Amino acid sequence: MHEETVKQWDRDNAGEKHIAPEGIECPKHVAIVGLGLIGGSLARRLRESGCHVSAWNHRDHPYANARAAGIDCKDTLEELVREDPDVLVLCNPLMAMPEVLGTIKPLINPDKTTLTDVGSVKAPVRAQVREVGLLDCYVGAHPMAGNERSGWVAADPSLFDDALWAVTFGPTTQYRRVVQIAGMITRGVRNTMIMLDDETHDREASLISHMPHVVSTALINEMSNDPNNAIASALSAGSWRDMTRVALTDPDRTRAMVVENSVNVEELLHRMIDRLSEIADALHEGDDTEIKRFFAEGQPYRDYKAQLNGTRLSDSTETVFRSIRIDPEHWREQLLKSAQHGEYIVRFTSGHRLIAEQRPNIRAK
Amino acid sequence: MHEETVKQWDRDNAGEKHIAPEGIECPKHVAIVGLGLIGGSLARRLRESGCHVSAWNHRDHPYANARAAGIDCKDTLEELVREDPDVLVLCNPLMAMPEVLGTIKPLINPDKTTLTDVGSVKAPVRAQVREVGLLDCYVGAHPMAGNERSGWVAADPSLFDDALWAVTFGPTTQYRRVVQIAGMITRGVRNTMIMLDDETHDREASLISHMPHVVSTALINEMSNDPNNAIASALSAGSWRDMTRVALTDPDRTRAMVVENSVNVEELLHRMIDRLSEIADALHEGDDTEIKRFFAEGQPYRDYKAQLNGTRLSDSTETVFRSIRIDPEHWREQLLKSAQHGEYIVRFTSGHRLIAEQRPNIRAK
Repeated sequence: MHEETVKQWDRDNAGEKHIAPEGIECPKHVAIVGLGLIGGSLARRLRESGCHVSAWNHRDHPYANARAAGIDCKDTLEELVREDPDVLVLCNPLMAMPEVLGTIKPLINPDKTTLTDVGSVKAPVRAQVREVGLLDCYVGAHPMAGNERSGWVAADPSLFDDALWAVTFGPTTQYRRVVQIAGMITRGVRNTMIMLDDETHDREASLISHMPHVVSTALINEMSNDPNNAIASALSAGSWRDMTRVALTDPDRTRAMVVENSVNVEELLHRMIDRLSEIADALHEGDDTEIKRFFAEGQPYRDYKAQLNGTRLSDSTETVFRSIRIDPEHWREQLLKSAQHGEYIVRFTSGHRLIAEQRPNIRAK
Repeated sequence: MHEETVKQWDRDNAGEKHIAPEGIECPKHVAIVGLGLIGGSLARRLRESGCHVSAWNHRDHPYANARAAGIDCKDTLEELVREDPDVLVLCNPLMAMPEVLGTIKPLINPDKTTLTDVGSVKAPVRAQVREVGLLDCYVGAHPMAGNERSGWVAADPSLFDDALWAVTFGPTTQYRRVVQIAGMITRGVRNTMIMLDDETHDREASLISHMPHVVSTALINEMSNDPNNAIASALSAGSWRDMTRVALTDPDRTRAMVVENSVNVEELLHRMIDRLSEIADALHEGDDTEIKRFFAEGQPYRDYKAQLNGTRLSDSTETVFRSIRIDPEHWREQLLKSAQHGEYIVRFTSGHRLIAEQRPNIRAK
């Protein structure tokens, strides 16, 4: 059985000439749709690694500079797709996705080209890819890179310095596509990655980003409506500034992000409401035990952050790398478990084996 | 009537030799209880201004350095109080307040000495001062200064650079005490101030600090309990880091602060719960109008911050100063209104007149 599935994998990868025994390399030709902050930075980063990068943007104003940076800019999206790139990366906004996918669908050669994207919410993209029937050649991706700027003018390959990517799979995702995208990320962009399903990605993204954005917005709403807000803002210091900084970024962008992930955000808001109700009740009742419990509950996270800081400040630290043999039948469970254990994938050394770095974990008390 | 109240004020101030016509100066002799981060920094700052500063600390380990900095360190609290300083500043922790006030009570000459403190929650301090019957010579104060460090070793006069003080009054606070404390703050510490009642102070402090600390703590509690928190922390970036930074500071200190101000924190938590419930419901129902309203509601605060940034980055800005004649009968209402209008008191030019700087305001749409 094991033998057979390995053979299956080998059959799947028969056309992948660039899978060398010394490790999975970056695909030779990556095509990028959209030369904004992320697409532009990614294109320049991949060029730095010697990859052939072609691109199309809905307006051609970045083309002169992009061409000077060695990027092969195409006049039409059709032209970009017809060249059968190894990987086609959708860096366009989510709202342009139906139109872009509609254009790609009749032209893409799904045997030759793997489709991926860089959106920060994964399930809606997969749904749209499913809609046009391109699921079999699709792998989701979300690089933890970005800043508050936008457009080609802000594009900078260093945006990807030390970035981690979340790469997402569904039940029908082909393993060879995942390995190919891993090659692009680890060799081409020189980043690390974790692998997981879209649902887990979107739930955890709502915990660390989308829900906190809503909470921060609720704080500035309270301030805006406070009759004594001149006094409140006079008294405000670092804690207020930190907690409200994200509410100052473009509210339309935040709203779009929250709405894309609304089910998870709603669930986490209810969890926050429960937590805040419990501590409000404890304060009301003067329940010292419960109040102490509330302030102690997050200690595992404080300890984890202290450990990270200690590692950063130490002169000499040890990093544990694990070499993992991938079982071609259970790769999804295996890779998800690796992510859940706090491992970052550093490189695929072959189609069957990868190296992962063990990162510090939040440990329950 | 007006004439009469002015005369009354002059009578009140008969003993205040240092109220010179050119403006209210720093009191000649300030005594400080507690040479920690705030007390130590304040003592050194006042010394820099040429003020005679005496001090007592519950342990004498900072005395050698403090004396080298020109601070007259006393062996006992009794000795400090018996010298009849113009102002006695309580910089001890709140939990030491009953003992400190008990020692001070029989020795203080309330006609000669004005009592003040630097606590971040004002009503509990006033309650303790009332308890020992020293309310008539007391004025509350809260400098917006501090960092995560503590103790004399961290004391630094630059901690007070550009700091704002909240100075609080009650129904029986004597106006001349307020003017005297203003002299210490504006001339001695070279800071600005706003004046308000304790209740308003504590309510607004809970909005911009105590309640957000609880919210931030609830976020790390959620993270600590999340079964996929290795993935969540891998995905986390700037927004999560900003929103949880305050939850990483000493949880016991945060807890003490929240409990001191529990009524206001509880009320504001309920307001936050209502706001989060509303947006959770809107997300559930896909109510775009309500979702848009939520993200637009804080726009006055975003505009205010953009205005502040614009002012900071501009080459040339205009500051409006207002000279305010104090009505001795309605000084509380007048000074509170000034704070509510976003004015910072720069200096008292006489017992009857002050100069205030108009600061940008959060404007309702």
